[in-house]
Amino acid sequence: VDGVTPLSRAAIIAVGSELLTPTRIDTNSLFITEQLNLLAIDVVAKAAVGDDRSELAHVFRALLDRADLVVCCGGLGPTEDDVTREVVAEVLARALVEDEAITARLRARFAARGYTGAMPEINRRQAMVPAGARVIENTRGTAPGLWLESGERVVLLLPGPPRELKPMLTAIVEGPLSARSSGASLARRIVRIAGRIESHTDEALQPLYREWEQGRPPVTATILAALGQIELHLSTRAASRESADAVLAAAVAQSSAVLGADVFSTDGRTMEAVVGDLLAGAGLRIAVAESCTGGLVTSRLTDVAGSSRYVERAVVTYANEAKTELLGVPEEMLAQHGAVSEPVALAMAGGVRTRARVDVGLGVTGIAGPGGATPGKPVGTVAIAAITPAATRSRLFRFHGEREQVKFQASQAALDMVRRMLSGV
Amino acid sequence: VDGVTPLSRAAIIAVGSELLTPTRIDTNSLFITEQLNLLAIDVVAKAAVGDDRSELAHVFRALLDRADLVVCCGGLGPTEDDVTREVVAEVLARALVEDEAITARLRARFAARGYTGAMPEINRRQAMVPAGARVIENTRGTAPGLWLESGERVVLLLPGPPRELKPMLTAIVEGPLSARSSGASLARRIVRIAGRIESHTDEALQPLYREWEQGRPPVTATILAALGQIELHLSTRAASRESADAVLAAAVAQSSAVLGADVFSTDGRTMEAVVGDLLAGAGLRIAVAESCTGGLVTSRLTDVAGSSRYVERAVVTYANEAKTELLGVPEEMLAQHGAVSEPVALAMAGGVRTRARVDVGLGVTGIAGPGGATPGKPVGTVAIAAITPAATRSRLFRFHGEREQVKFQASQAALDMVRRMLSGV
Repeated sequence: VDGVTPLSRAAIIAVGSELLTPTRIDTNSLFITEQLNLLAIDVVAKAAVGDDRSELAHVFRALLDRADLVVCCGGLGPTEDDVTREVVAEVLARALVEDEAITARLRARFAARGYTGAMPEINRRQAMVPAGARVIENTRGTAPGLWLESGERVVLLLPGPPRELKPMLTAIVEGPLSARSSGASLARRIVRIAGRIESHTDEALQPLYREWEQGRPPVTATILAALGQIELHLSTRAASRESADAVLAAAVAQSSAVLGADVFSTDGRTMEAVVGDLLAGAGLRIAVAESCTGGLVTSRLTDVAGSSRYVERAVVTYANEAKTELLGVPEEMLAQHGAVSEPVALAMAGGVRTRARVDVGLGVTGIAGPGGATPGKPVGTVAIAAITPAATRSRLFRFHGEREQVKFQASQAALDMVRRMLSGV
Repeated sequence: VDGVTPLSRAAIIAVGSELLTPTRIDTNSLFITEQLNLLAIDVVAKAAVGDDRSELAHVFRALLDRADLVVCCGGLGPTEDDVTREVVAEVLARALVEDEAITARLRARFAARGYTGAMPEINRRQAMVPAGARVIENTRGTAPGLWLESGERVVLLLPGPPRELKPMLTAIVEGPLSARSSGASLARRIVRIAGRIESHTDEALQPLYREWEQGRPPVTATILAALGQIELHLSTRAASRESADAVLAAAVAQSSAVLGADVFSTDGRTMEAVVGDLLAGAGLRIAVAESCTGGLVTSRLTDVAGSSRYVERAVVTYANEAKTELLGVPEEMLAQHGAVSEPVALAMAGGVRTRARVDVGLGVTGIAGPGGATPGKPVGTVAIAAITPAATRSRLFRFHGEREQVKFQASQAALDMVRRMLSGV
């Protein structure tokens, strides 16, 4: 818009007393941040306040001082507890006026749902909007969104339920917000890495960091260690979404060249989706024999839609006799090497592969803890083996952490072994 | 403390630029809230700001206006990015002074770790504290915590990593914070409910709500619908932790009396832990046959430490032939009733129970989606059956949601079926 400074600094306020308890957290702000970043709008602060007029007014005022866009989510329902409309009207010194179009839409909505009688009078509160607000239709609920301008500032009120908020915000970002942005874009990509520790990843990327810092536009890189994987977060701000995407695509390619086969995803896919795509792409089927992971490897594989094409079966053999009965692991082998050993993992992978008559067999056996450690085999020791038409591999790992963390890391390493073998690396 | 108003209103500020990206969120505030509530200190607002002096100063000032306790977490590291100490000193108009005891501890820590040479000079920043601060030792990292008093207000600076923050805060809550509190306590309990929808739960509890509201002290009740379960959150504020606990224990007992066998946990245990305790308590072993849940039921059962005592084995039979081969489900039955049917679920439960020679057999077969629906059997249709020494049950469910949500709800319903049978309800 001519003569108006593009919006660049946003603050997000989540409204709801439940967000101040020990069990609930605002997560809408993650989606909101992602969407605002598409328009190169940075989030400079986030806050959560209860359903309390005075607190909300105070925090809203404080953040309006620092941001040219304030997004409030929640507190737009029909009850007395829903205070966002009133507070924002008061702070911006606007009258609350009934929007007849909203009232009509609400009445139609209640009629269509076949409620006996008319719309509850309480819902009329949702039609009261600060004077001058632009109304944003909510196709999935009763609370409309509101767009307010105050000088060069924009205030956006959105409902709290994610399924209502998301389509509304997406429409706003593509429409009015885009018109108020600089045309620039802040893009992000995540490179996911397995089988390499954080410090080695960091070391390998040092020369790229320097190059990216001095680039035009510069690329910001952050390494985050997550369970069973390292994430390299890349972001850049460029004159258009296309050029930002191109700059990041180049940085992703450079990272992949340096980190090689340890990079398993550059497009947001999870490890299980990557393995699933490799199996489906090659027309291969897999069967899994799990001990310490207790079904987690297979549960992750089957989280992917369409996995019934390539997951044939799995067995979870917690007891030694189940390993012998269901997989044909020889009792002597169990006695000689112990259940947590590469030979047993190989026999499990081979046993399930042969019996299921599939292409790929995967075996995992280990000690998830807290009990079960034996001399020389502490908690976290896990043997993994995989057999594909082309190759056989096995490896003994040692993971750290609590039971569920050991389970997850073992499942990640098992899937990663299959990924590497199917990728021929 | 004589003459000093007890602390009652807290604000929490999480410091770190990563908390303003689309992928990371502050979760420390949940633990902090839980701990403060033990002393009847309410959280009135939460905020997240980047590693930015000006933003942090602004938000800190704004929240210091509204709270008598401000807890900042993060930004206490040794680098230039770590600005919390400086900003807080500036806002409270204190000089930053080197605390020799911290420097000595840091030097000793580096020496003990066998780093060559001395402590990096940069770490000396961590010994600079606002004048008058009480230092709180960090046994798990280099950043000490700080306790500052400003008039009747308290400002608490804690490191960001949860494993460092948690033990420090626990010690503070039991020590100096307890001395500044009213002696009262805000206690919470969660009643977990399965097999009953939110509106029916709400309806059944209506008379109790009224009674609790008028109680002395009153009990606040909130119903939250989570995936596969309803949670009733109860809280109360009383003169002591003991009396708050007693008031809530009575409310929990009342809820359980009204909701009966649908209540599966009143002590924080998950469904899988409850089922595990029932199996272990009765000396029973279980085997599981899963189709659409893909291993999730068994993975959840084996998330519980000690589950190798009662989980014998599981089979994941995605393909029909696996159901026949591994579980003895007759081909005619699959042809006649379809794989997603109560007879097949029963045959799966019976097959795995007999073959594993265990007490309890559980079978789950369904359509997780998005594909796989057949006429009369939409996505989300799941048949579940369980056989115990005392009884046999089966039931056809219809769940809503995406693939992973259907999987989770099916696993929850399967575990709940076993829970009810073992509890004799």
